[in-house]
Amino acid sequence: MIKGQNTIGFQLSALGNESIKAIRVDNQQELEGEFISATSEEINLAVEKSVKAFDVYSKISGVKRAEFLEAIAGEIEALESKLIDRAMLESGLPQGRLEGERGRTCGQLRAFAALLREGSWVDAKIETAIPDRTPIPKPDLRKINTAIGPVVVFTASNFPLAFSTAGGDTASALASGCTVIVKAHESHLGTNSLVAGAIVSAAKKTNMPEGVFSSLNSKDYSVGTALVMHPSIKAVGFTGSIKGGKALYDLAQTRKEPIPVYAEMGSVNPVLLMPSKLKDNAKDLAATYSNSITMGVGQFCTNPGIIIGVQSDSLNEFAKELASNMAKVKGSCMLNKGISDNFDSNSTKILSSSTVEVLHKSSEVSYDNKGSILAKINASDFLANKDMSDEVFGPFSMIVSCKNIEEMQKVVASLEGQLTVTIMANKNDYTENSSLIYSAQKIAGRVIYNGTPTGVEVCRAMHHGGTFPSSTNGKYTSVGQDAIYRFVRPVAFQNSPEQFLPEELKNGNPLKIMRIVNGKYSNSSI
Amino acid sequence: MIKGQNTIGFQLSALGNESIKAIRVDNQQELEGEFISATSEEINLAVEKSVKAFDVYSKISGVKRAEFLEAIAGEIEALESKLIDRAMLESGLPQGRLEGERGRTCGQLRAFAALLREGSWVDAKIETAIPDRTPIPKPDLRKINTAIGPVVVFTASNFPLAFSTAGGDTASALASGCTVIVKAHESHLGTNSLVAGAIVSAAKKTNMPEGVFSSLNSKDYSVGTALVMHPSIKAVGFTGSIKGGKALYDLAQTRKEPIPVYAEMGSVNPVLLMPSKLKDNAKDLAATYSNSITMGVGQFCTNPGIIIGVQSDSLNEFAKELASNMAKVKGSCMLNKGISDNFDSNSTKILSSSTVEVLHKSSEVSYDNKGSILAKINASDFLANKDMSDEVFGPFSMIVSCKNIEEMQKVVASLEGQLTVTIMANKNDYTENSSLIYSAQKIAGRVIYNGTPTGVEVCRAMHHGGTFPSSTNGKYTSVGQDAIYRFVRPVAFQNSPEQFLPEELKNGNPLKIMRIVNGKYSNSSI
Repeated sequence: MIKGQNTIGFQLSALGNESIKAIRVDNQQELEGEFISATSEEINLAVEKSVKAFDVYSKISGVKRAEFLEAIAGEIEALESKLIDRAMLESGLPQGRLEGERGRTCGQLRAFAALLREGSWVDAKIETAIPDRTPIPKPDLRKINTAIGPVVVFTASNFPLAFSTAGGDTASALASGCTVIVKAHESHLGTNSLVAGAIVSAAKKTNMPEGVFSSLNSKDYSVGTALVMHPSIKAVGFTGSIKGGKALYDLAQTRKEPIPVYAEMGSVNPVLLMPSKLKDNAKDLAATYSNSITMGVGQFCTNPGIIIGVQSDSLNEFAKELASNMAKVKGSCMLNKGISDNFDSNSTKILSSSTVEVLHKSSEVSYDNKGSILAKINASDFLANKDMSDEVFGPFSMIVSCKNIEEMQKVVASLEGQLTVTIMANKNDYTENSSLIYSAQKIAGRVIYNGTPTGVEVCRAMHHGGTFPSSTNGKYTSVGQDAIYRFVRPVAFQNSPEQFLPEELKNGNPLKIMRIVNGKYSNSSI
Repeated sequence: MIKGQNTIGFQLSALGNESIKAIRVDNQQELEGEFISATSEEINLAVEKSVKAFDVYSKISGVKRAEFLEAIAGEIEALESKLIDRAMLESGLPQGRLEGERGRTCGQLRAFAALLREGSWVDAKIETAIPDRTPIPKPDLRKINTAIGPVVVFTASNFPLAFSTAGGDTASALASGCTVIVKAHESHLGTNSLVAGAIVSAAKKTNMPEGVFSSLNSKDYSVGTALVMHPSIKAVGFTGSIKGGKALYDLAQTRKEPIPVYAEMGSVNPVLLMPSKLKDNAKDLAATYSNSITMGVGQFCTNPGIIIGVQSDSLNEFAKELASNMAKVKGSCMLNKGISDNFDSNSTKILSSSTVEVLHKSSEVSYDNKGSILAKINASDFLANKDMSDEVFGPFSMIVSCKNIEEMQKVVASLEGQLTVTIMANKNDYTENSSLIYSAQKIAGRVIYNGTPTGVEVCRAMHHGGTFPSSTNGKYTSVGQDAIYRFVRPVAFQNSPEQFLPEELKNGNPLKIMRIVNGKYSNSSI
């Protein structure tokens, strides 16, 4: 069942000589399957098939694409425990988490299918002609979102299912009418192979064109680089580190035709503990945040890396309780050795500063059993050293202690673009410190009140994309149905004969979608 | 009335020593007004005021911003003939054209105002909480488009009003809630000064914060470069050449935080003469296209630079008629000497190829009286030499003669991204050559049937932005109300108290806008 070949359209292919090992993360032993790195010939063939399939697939109706997405979800579920077992070995994540992630993955696919069945997402806008307008007649103009072209998806280490082979990027690109080539993650090659097989199976069952999906293995950066630089590729989706995402972004700008790279790169997700809330709820806040910081060994892009409050007995109590709660959470296996090594070096860099106090540091430090770290720093020292706001990916957080609200304001203003900002506050805080709350809203893509940044709801109103460097393009979300907008561009038709208009723009409105017709919302025919 | 100073917020400022001359284009004489190039100090002050004003302006209601835009239109109209007279001297464009352009400029400002008054453009999406959902509660999530930050606008040589100081870029950015700094065009410094004064006057009358608008003069690229590189600038609008637009785009990518550069750069706007239509209407087509090619001395980004047809008696008749019609159109003054020089060198480069036949070349060749050129080339020669598809900005067009429909298909497939593609066809063509028509739709942002690419309607269904290199970002339009989306990013609020939600997201829906609530369109309260 675990295929080591590359998936090129409906074919398995292994022309290359270089193989990559799949590793069981908790003991670093080799796992079943010999994964063959794609050759230039295979990369070009995958793109060629993707381009050819795009011509057909981008014209297929939304309902047919919905059937394809639903079939993918069904095929993934049909893999049953085989998929979960392999993902557990490769990612070190526990069964419950992966079962939940599978549910999320299939839920996303079905949510995009529902969006396509409803159909209004295309943003159809129609202005009918006014032939007798003076001095010149007004033409008939109709605009719709259309698929942008073949898309490359780089899968994420920390979501082997929900942001990988059939994850949010692939689902949204396929939903938009784009074809997809996945660059498999070296940390879950077998999981990728199983899901790629499920997608191909779904494509065959729903009569999708060969090449609508391909998946390539790579022993190093070469396959990813070749894909991003290929002139027929029109967009890139990526979830991972700032270094990796920015490198792909920069690479894509060196093309003759620059293309969008939607890199979701993570952030420190500042949490503001407002004074009155902190005073009333120090202990509860500590329990909530201990859970948020250590969940999934802290390996979420929304992990709360910085917690900001005004120095007080309450902040001390919170800090003490948080340290004590975190100390009770047992260590666990990280996603791969590289992430563990980075966690060690990034946390050491921060802890080695004389301005940083260690409130808790787990004695569990090995990659397969990593415990958490809680640090503390005064705001003045934090503000004096830019490195202190660097992300430490993993179970790490740092309390920033401010002299007063004004200094808290300065800390917030000093932060770079964030995926999220969280405001822990009560009614007194809303009244007394509204200007701090308003200014906090400016730095992030999502503003959370009295919750945790971890736990990203998949829905139409989600925005998971902050200003740089948390994302390369904060105008788009990578979570939720609106992720589809990354992979489309509008096309306007002027005085087009009915037969060359997409169904969504025809007078009769056969799909009964909501449109903006002469400035008014309408789901009627014209 | 003509001020040579820079407009920095509500102040006029001329700290620098270097002055720029405004030139009367038809005789190259100096015009009234000594224009002072902005210094670094002035650039920084303009950005500082823009940042400060943004904090206030981005929170002002849409209705208040609408009043500001409408006031700008009123102030521009109040300049009466003074504005038109100056623009005529600086641009060489005739009175009727500039009066029409003023109408378009004020119409755009009022169209954005109407969009803001209606209010639904913010794309409010709401998902209400499900506290008892298992295994975890669903939070309340609400998303809205918010202004991105201070924007720099580079004004266009060919639209001294409609795509300049208070043109489409400025109007859409101000509509979105962004503050604007204009880099004045050296070709219409006095016109810019008059319109900048009108904007400042409107801002004062409608109580807008100082710094909502500034305008800087520049003797060279230095002011524009400094503005694009300033860390507080969050987006750039540009209309002009591929060389200029791409240089600004590349510059913005070298920033620590890359920012979007919306450069609308023009294209050759291919026109497909389908066989049956050509046979029936050769003479009419020639009259229509003679007008489109020579209108405004061809100085439109939608000028039809390439006309593609299958070799036939009809194509010969069309070519002969077009040449004869074009010969009857008198030459006219170009926008500036640089554009005239580029027209000469770019057209010479194409005409000097031995594969190109000259069908018509006006004897009027001076910059102040430029006539038109019509060339012809065989498709095989066109396909063999990439330079033949380069834009010649001005009254130039080239007929590409194809052996058959298959070769026409190859010519279309060889073209880079275009703002527009035009299909001249009748019912026979729709039936017989639908695949060519479908493939033509893929290369452009707007597909025109049986019309001309020139004449870009300002409306909600317009898309004026093609794939690279016609624009740097084909996902956005620079014409029509949707241009506002270039300058916003979504922000999601999770479990936000009512008081920190924008009006558009409040339960009561006080602005009565259309929203997507739990997946359904609704303009009701919750």
